[in-house]
Amino acid sequence: MQHAQFQQRLRDFRASMQLAAQDAALIFSSDNLRYLFNYTGEAAYGVVTADALYLITDYRFVEQAEQECINEQMSANVICRDRDKQSLGAAIAVLLHQHRVHRVWFEAAQVTVSIWQDISQDLSFCVLTPAPAVIEQQRKTKDAWEIAQIQAAAQIADQALAAIMPQMRLGVREADLALELDYQMQKRGSAGVSFTTILGFGARSALPHCLPSDRELQAGDLVVLDFGAVVNGYRSDMTRSFVAGKATPQQRAMFDTVYAAQQAAMATLQAGVAAVDVNAASSAVLQASPFAEFAGPGLGHGVGIKLHEQPFISPVCREHLGWHYVVTIEPGIYIPSYGGIRIEDDVLITDDGYQLLTHAPKEFELSI
Amino acid sequence: MQHAQFQQRLRDFRASMQLAAQDAALIFSSDNLRYLFNYTGEAAYGVVTADALYLITDYRFVEQAEQECINEQMSANVICRDRDKQSLGAAIAVLLHQHRVHRVWFEAAQVTVSIWQDISQDLSFCVLTPAPAVIEQQRKTKDAWEIAQIQAAAQIADQALAAIMPQMRLGVREADLALELDYQMQKRGSAGVSFTTILGFGARSALPHCLPSDRELQAGDLVVLDFGAVVNGYRSDMTRSFVAGKATPQQRAMFDTVYAAQQAAMATLQAGVAAVDVNAASSAVLQASPFAEFAGPGLGHGVGIKLHEQPFISPVCREHLGWHYVVTIEPGIYIPSYGGIRIEDDVLITDDGYQLLTHAPKEFELSI
Repeated sequence: MQHAQFQQRLRDFRASMQLAAQDAALIFSSDNLRYLFNYTGEAAYGVVTADALYLITDYRFVEQAEQECINEQMSANVICRDRDKQSLGAAIAVLLHQHRVHRVWFEAAQVTVSIWQDISQDLSFCVLTPAPAVIEQQRKTKDAWEIAQIQAAAQIADQALAAIMPQMRLGVREADLALELDYQMQKRGSAGVSFTTILGFGARSALPHCLPSDRELQAGDLVVLDFGAVVNGYRSDMTRSFVAGKATPQQRAMFDTVYAAQQAAMATLQAGVAAVDVNAASSAVLQASPFAEFAGPGLGHGVGIKLHEQPFISPVCREHLGWHYVVTIEPGIYIPSYGGIRIEDDVLITDDGYQLLTHAPKEFELSI
Repeated sequence: MQHAQFQQRLRDFRASMQLAAQDAALIFSSDNLRYLFNYTGEAAYGVVTADALYLITDYRFVEQAEQECINEQMSANVICRDRDKQSLGAAIAVLLHQHRVHRVWFEAAQVTVSIWQDISQDLSFCVLTPAPAVIEQQRKTKDAWEIAQIQAAAQIADQALAAIMPQMRLGVREADLALELDYQMQKRGSAGVSFTTILGFGARSALPHCLPSDRELQAGDLVVLDFGAVVNGYRSDMTRSFVAGKATPQQRAMFDTVYAAQQAAMATLQAGVAAVDVNAASSAVLQASPFAEFAGPGLGHGVGIKLHEQPFISPVCREHLGWHYVVTIEPGIYIPSYGGIRIEDDVLITDDGYQLLTHAPKEFELSI
């Protein structure tokens, strides 16, 4: 992580502030504090003015804040508030007065009504406006360091999956296999896991958010496994589908359809493509198949500091995929009470195509 | 979990609503949806009226909601909202109109400003008031089923610690040991972990929220290990402190002081005791020691669905500990750049004392 990268992020954000004639912005989101301030702790609030940066925290996190926010990458002012003596609103008011701030953005989607009621009563001298999602807009485009983190997370996930494949045998329980996978990712350096691992055997594979249970793997089961790793706060997200043994003609047809839908979507990828066109390419394959009515809604999403970030690739998405967006492409077929198949990869959008970040093999049949 | 327990919770909550002349309450907190509705999923909103219960969700979670909220324990009405066609506010308004509701509590501490702006514009026919923390107040007193879950979580934590003790040897890395502990808890049935395991060796043990690093265990190091398990949504929370080898006189004095402070606090426990008196008993021991200036602030907190619940036992707490509260008792000494010691147990408050829920041994010296 470089000083220049934080400077660029701040410059872009301040340009948006200026365009909207805002003198300051209050940042409540931990994701955005990481992105703008390099701060990864809790219980902190950011204040951005045209020429200064403040991070307000308390004795529990001040040491961490000073380490992360005052160094060669970042030079914020860290304020240690005594919570028994000064309200958060009062602490913010001092800074806004000092900078003669009048118009203020605040992250309305990131602060609760009760905290905001407390804060805003101290800020009656300002015009307070909910901030549009400009930081989230900036975060869509990943810089080289961010791409490297997602790549590292994806590689850990690839390797962890390879490590547990020998345990994917008849009789293994969903919960035990998921735990082994989580363990192998962390053993390889993942900070926790990207999200609660989704693992469903048999009919349970048709549940898009199937939490691992005591269900044991049986011959002929479909298997959906959706998981990811975390490196320096950046996430990966990958799904692989299997069948326990030799596929029936229907299972094979389902897999081939999903695979073809994913390939069709990927063939459209390049900087500037409309998200609806990517979705339509996948959808055309699914809708032309015998499984049209069982196709899942939505094709993918941005991934980065959050697991699910903008843009969301769907039939109603109005966005274009930009250069160095990182998105998932994950078509699926879900037949209730029978089973499901989903294949998901993370891709980096480039000028003339894409770069695949997840590399685990897509062999469908398990030899068990 | 019994039907009668949910009925009791709802009866108590509705009694509070009636006392405040509220016709309905909007529940946004996932913890409170679990507590009042038996719902453990995401993306759901509860509406409680004097004689009806509604859970509003969407296609992603409607199956789970129907399984959890319509059965012999619970009989809520589950509403599957089409998010493309109906706003959340409109869905709530339909119900409130139907029940001729006028005065409405909402969980202001659990909803963001932007979501609330969207919802409330559809509810202009109601008087909307932030709800006081009455559900959180109810949740302080644990029923028999809740106690059994916390006990089960505490037992898993005890057993997992015993399982990894042989790995607490010179050269082991904090991150590796913490991962093994997390793995052993989940292997024994913990659903994830109660919180990110805190593990610090040497001077790092003085950081109250020390995240595991690559630091290796060295002879003479103090070790602070703070962790917990989760069973059916209920958490445990325990800290043990060790020294790698034979304690120096100062380390031994630190440990004996913290242990004595914890025992002094526990000796005061029984239903009705003032939290300040529990705190004072511990504080007296710490303040009379050579480590007075290094004593940590705060002695403990409630634990249950959330890791940190009311009451918070501290010098400024105005509460009394009630029958069947479950709280932590966790005095600590933290000497910057040297090391820390904390001992923490979970206790159930009873009529004439307390019941210890965490049972891991408190042997200080590791034979390594």
